[in-house]
Parts: sequence; C-alpha cells; structure tokens
Amino acid sequence: MFELNFEINQFLDTYWQKKPALLKQGFIDFQDPIAPDELAGLAMEEDLESRLVYQEDEQWHAECGPFKSFERLEKDGATLLVQAVDHWHPDAQQLVRPFRFLPNWRIDDLMISYSTPKGGVGPHIDNYDVFIIQGEGKRHWRVGARQTLPEFAAHGALKHCGEFNAAIDVEMEPGDILYIPSGCPHEGYAIEPSLNYSVGFRAPDQNDLLSSFTDYNIDNHDNALRYTDIPMQIREKPGCIEDSELNKLHQVMLANCKTPEQLIPWFGRMISEAKHDLDIAAPEYPLENKEILEFLEDGAQFTRLGGLRAVYFEQTPKLVFINGEEYDFSGFTELAHCLCNQDEAASELLNIFKDEEAALTLFTKLVNLGYWYAE
Amino acid sequence: MFELNFEINQFLDTYWQKKPALLKQGFIDFQDPIAPDELAGLAMEEDLESRLVYQEDEQWHAECGPFKSFERLEKDGATLLVQAVDHWHPDAQQLVRPFRFLPNWRIDDLMISYSTPKGGVGPHIDNYDVFIIQGEGKRHWRVGARQTLPEFAAHGALKHCGEFNAAIDVEMEPGDILYIPSGCPHEGYAIEPSLNYSVGFRAPDQNDLLSSFTDYNIDNHDNALRYTDIPMQIREKPGCIEDSELNKLHQVMLANCKTPEQLIPWFGRMISEAKHDLDIAAPEYPLENKEILEFLEDGAQFTRLGGLRAVYFEQTPKLVFINGEEYDFSGFTELAHCLCNQDEAASELLNIFKDEEAALTLFTKLVNLGYWYAE
Ligand SMILES: O=C(O)CCC(=O)C(=O)O
Ligand SMILES: O=C(O)CCC(=O)C(=O)O
Ligand SMILES: [Co+2]
Ligand SMILES: [Co+2]
Repeated sequence: MFELNFEINQFLDTYWQKKPALLKQGFIDFQDPIAPDELAGLAMEEDLESRLVYQEDEQWHAECGPFKSFERLEKDGATLLVQAVDHWHPDAQQLVRPFRFLPNWRIDDLMISYSTPKGGVGPHIDNYDVFIIQGEGKRHWRVGARQTLPEFAAHGALKHCGEFNAAIDVEMEPGDILYIPSGCPHEGYAIEPSLNYSVGFRAPDQNDLLSSFTDYNIDNHDNALRYTDIPMQIREKPGCIEDSELNKLHQVMLANCKTPEQLIPWFGRMISEAKHDLDIAAPEYPLENKEILEFLEDGAQFTRLGGLRAVYFEQTPKLVFINGEEYDFSGFTELAHCLCNQDEAASELLNIFKDEEAALTLFTKLVNLGYWYAE
Repeated sequence: MFELNFEINQFLDTYWQKKPALLKQGFIDFQDPIAPDELAGLAMEEDLESRLVYQEDEQWHAECGPFKSFERLEKDGATLLVQAVDHWHPDAQQLVRPFRFLPNWRIDDLMISYSTPKGGVGPHIDNYDVFIIQGEGKRHWRVGARQTLPEFAAHGALKHCGEFNAAIDVEMEPGDILYIPSGCPHEGYAIEPSLNYSVGFRAPDQNDLLSSFTDYNIDNHDNALRYTDIPMQIREKPGCIEDSELNKLHQVMLANCKTPEQLIPWFGRMISEAKHDLDIAAPEYPLENKEILEFLEDGAQFTRLGGLRAVYFEQTPKLVFINGEEYDFSGFTELAHCLCNQDEAASELLNIFKDEEAALTLFTKLVNLGYWYAE
C-alpha cells in the first residue's frame, strides 16, 4: 500500500542516526490511511494514549485523553496526538510496514497528530529516532543538528528546548518525510490543518536495560547466587575490602550476564512486550488445526496483529519471543522466521504445516490468542 | 573486655562457611554486657527492631515491637529478640569486637534474645553466618549440616524448616559459642531463662547487588549511555536480533560495571550504610580542630559509634566510605586506615594530626557528625 521512494541503503549510510534528512516525496501520491474524525474517535477511547496541546495567551497547555469533545480543535494553534494508532487501526498499521527495512525490535509505534493552523507541540528533543510523514495539509518544520540545549518544562509533561539553528527548514507537503535522529531539536507548526504520522524507534539506555534485567532475575531466580568468602585468615586490616573480595563480588553480581547469550531469555521477553495496549480479540470459539488448514486452502492469509512484537535471535533461531513470552519452535524454525520476518503469511504456511503437525498446533495456539488473524 | 579462647586461623580453615562448630567456653568467665531488663527497655523504643515469639496451644505467635509491657515473658515458652543492640548499647557493642578478625564489611549486627524456659523461635535456616554466644542461663541447641529442607511460614514473618538430624546437640552454658554457617538448620530452646547473643554476617546475593547497583546508577547518571545502531543495511530478516546487536546491547547494559573497580563508588556507599538506625548524637556545639587536639593531648581516646560502618578498598586506599558517603583521604591514608581498622584511636591520631592539618579538619568533621566520640 505504501512504498518508499528513496534509496534506502544510501539513506542508511548517510543519515541514519547521523543527521536529519528531508525525504521529499518519500511517498508518491500519498493517501492518508485515516481521517481526522477517526483519529478524534480513537482519542475518545480509554485504551489509547492521547494528548491535546495548545497555546493560549502565550502559555502552553497540555491535556491528557481520553477526550469527550474537541472544541479546542475548532480554533487555531492546537494539536491532538494519539499514540500507537497502529495497534488499533489496520490501515494506519500499513504505514509502519515500509520501515521494516530496519530491525523490528527497534520500531516503537505509530503516533499520529492532527493540527489546526499554527498548531504544534513546540521545540523539543527526543531520545528516539523518528520518521515524520506529512499527510493532508501543510506544516512548517524546522530541525537542528544534534546538539545539547537547555531543556525545561513548558507545562507539566511538555518538555521544551531552547532556540536552535535549523539545518532543515521546510514546508512539508503530503508524502514528504522528515527523518529526525535522536538528539536533534525540532519543531513543527501547521500551515493548513495537518495530519502528521510519526514512526518512532526505541533504544533502551543502560539503566533501562539493567533495571529490567534485574527485575527479571528477581522474579525468576529463587536461588540467587550469594557471595561467599574466599579462604580466610585472621584479617589484620578488617576495614579493608581486598581486591580478591571485590573481584568475587563482581563475579557474583554479574553471574547471570557475563555473556551476551545469557541476556536472551530476558531481553527477548522485554523487547517483545508492547509498550501500549494491543487490540487483542481472540476468536470467539477456539479454532482447531484443521480449520486453520481449511482457511489457508481457501486462500486466506494470516496477518500479525497491529503492534504485536515477535522476534528471535540469530544465535537461538528456535526460540521466538512473542508479546513478552518465549515459544519453542524447535523442529520448525521456518515457521518462526516466517512469522517474525513478515507481517502476513499465506501459502508458505501451508507448505510448512504439510510436513509438521506440531508447527500447525503452535500456530493454531497463536491464532487462538488473537496474535494472528485471517483475512 | 571479651577475648576469644580458640585458635582462630584453625577455626577459619576448618569451619568458616563449611560446617557448624561448638566453641565450648569460647569466652572464659563470660560476663553478660546487658541485663534482661535493659534488653526489654530497648524493646520499648521506636528506634530498635524487636520481636516477641512464643508458642501457645501448639501454635506459633510472633509480634513486632516496640512493646509497652512484657506479660508474656512471665510465662514459659517465650523469646524476646532485639536487633542491632550494638548500635545502642556500648557494652553490648564490645561483644562484636572479638569477631573483627573477619572483614568488617561482612559483619552485620548484634542481635540479643532473652528466652524463658522452653522459649525459642523454632527450627529455621538463615542465609547468614552467625556466632551465637550463650549468656546467662542454659539453652539446648541443635544444629544440622548444610542441607535443603522444606520451608514454610509458621506464622506471618516466622519461617520454619522441616525436621533435621543434629550434627551438634548441646546444652549451652555461659561463654559457649555456637558457630552456624549460612544454610544450616538450627533451633534452640531455653532450659533456664537465657540470654543469647548473635553476631551475624551479611552476604549480598546477585539480585541484591544488581538492584542496588542499578538504583545507584539511575540516581547518579543523568546521561545514561543509550543503545545506538551498528552500521546498517536493508534488513532482509527484520524479525531477527543479530549477534552484533545483542553484543552491543550487552556492552551498553554493562558499560558501568565491566571491571571490579567500577563498582567501588557504589559498593562502598552501599556496604557502609547501616541496615538499622544508628544512635547518632552530634556534639551540641560543633568542635574545632584545636579542641580535638586538646582532647587527645589530655589522653582521651575516640571511639567509633556503635554499628557505624567505615571501609576502604585495597585498590583505592584514599577513598573511605563511611555510613553511606564517600570521603577523600588523599594525603593522609594513615588516618583512613586507623579509623577503619580500629574501633578506637588515641595517640596515633596525635601523630597524624601533627603533620597534617587537613587530616585533623576531616576528623573534626566526622566527630561533629557524631561518627566518632571522645571517651
Ligand atoms: O506531530 C507533532 O506535532 C509532533 C511530532 C514529533 O515531534 C515527533 O514525532 O517526534
Ligand atoms: O536467639 C534465638 O532464639 C535465635 C537465634 C538465631 O536463630 C540466630 O541468631 O540465627
Ligand atoms: Co518530537
Ligand atoms: Co537463626
């Protein structure tokens, strides 16, 4: 449905995580997958995270959804932002697909904003890489090179940064794409009522990683390794922590994460967990293997639920992590890779299931969980 | 005041962390440093952690202090336990000293129990090594070899273990010492009203270490290192986390703890923090350097506050960690080691201060914090 109109490997070499880029007409003949009304409808729901940002009397305001009505959007200078729309809107989800040339585990979600003229969230810096696609309308965007700037709270949860020189200063038109690496200040203000689509990328920092890993270990290891003493003699300097003791402490502390491989069971679960709610709708009656086969024989294709995360590690291709859980795909890794590397699968599934009943049984389970659905 | 009456290096070789030992008359002519009344008095205070354990109609009961009265101690089958008495009672603190042949950072606190006949906390297993000293009265103690046993809650916070064969089965008399390594089941029941003194040793486990380290990093590093991508090309298998990515994640996660040395600033703070409140009483008027000198010249000695923890690392002898804070002793490490390795100091301080005003100034600060006091 959406196809990128630029040289991807060249983009990766030159811009990815290095500097901002304007990808003029990155999508040709861009058609919005969602209308402003529909977006407002989603912002009325409990399950989605939404915000309304506006300026009044030179003051910034930010309100959190769900919203009951949208009077403020009838005036200039307002922006409605809805997170993880790809989890709830299959057409919007299509807009994430073209960006799957990047590792899926790095992809966060699709945020969509609707702005009235002059509407924007103000100058700010994100920790995340993002592609911002211009839908209907026009918006004036400014982006600076990566830099550190003073940052301050313009209002509650609205963090702004100081002024910056623009490396990119552009009037975006439908189909234009702006790539903004983490750390680059940016601000956009609508010229005409505008839809903007942000495909964001998550990158954990060392504290995120350590604290999630620690929590995982506390929950999953009853018999935690405990420090025990090195062989001892009467200690003349009892106030001293000897090198050999510090080394031993270091070993005990890192016993579960000495090697990258040891991270797999935890990181697979962590990174495959969706940060926002999923629109999970399990089938009313659990399907059976033979019904799945019939669907496929009838030419149906199965689609991965929007926002569902499924990954495996190069090193352990039989283990698949789906929505925070580990699944064993031993004996049918082909299925694993098909489900993780593609958003949709059809006839290739039939080929796999033909020879491998266990693969079919596991897939049936995933369908019954609402993780893949037939179309 | 208290002197151990056994061959320490032989004890360390044969028993320490290996198997339980009865050190018959480990203290000769043992005199209790505290009376049952005084102990009960401490159990009435907010600042101390105390428990009353008793059995009634074959049911275990456990109550937490502070207590207003002690009717239950007038009957048989009750035990009153008070934690960290060494923090509040200088004479009781003396009982920790003989055990400072072990590294101070491993020493936890002095717990004291008073039991009426038949009183005991029931069979259990601790994660900590402990020396239990018999004071007045007699108590029947049984200790098993290290083993895994079923464990269950006999009442709220009272964890018991199943039956075990005794490797040691003894009627303890005043001055006898029982050494119980972590993991060995034990139970004691008073024959006569009894005082028991437990010198416990803490050993962090991998989860304690990792979670404290993580918290420290979250609090102290604003600019946490964030994952950034390896050079990228169009990803044919976007569902795969490649080895090089996992390696990078591992590096980012452990950037602050690759080497034992990196743990020093955190571990020094963590391990020098007292787990129980200290009886800190800073001088009413801050003292000045010259007053400290006068005290010393008059022959006073300075004592480290009971339970205060002061350590340094073999690798960084100039950094001293006292009660959770780091102090820079550059230029006068001799003072550092004197304060960490001895409970008391007198004339040696004079020698150090003679040549080093800065050492005196730092020591004055520590005295004004209430960490060392003159006697
Ligand atoms: O659409 C907007 O107004 C905000 C977009 C943005 O700043 C982002 O996606 O990082
Ligand atoms: O004194 C008591 O009753 C309990 C002592 C004990 O079990 C210990 O110190 O580990
Ligand atoms: Co932004
Ligand atoms: Co015990």
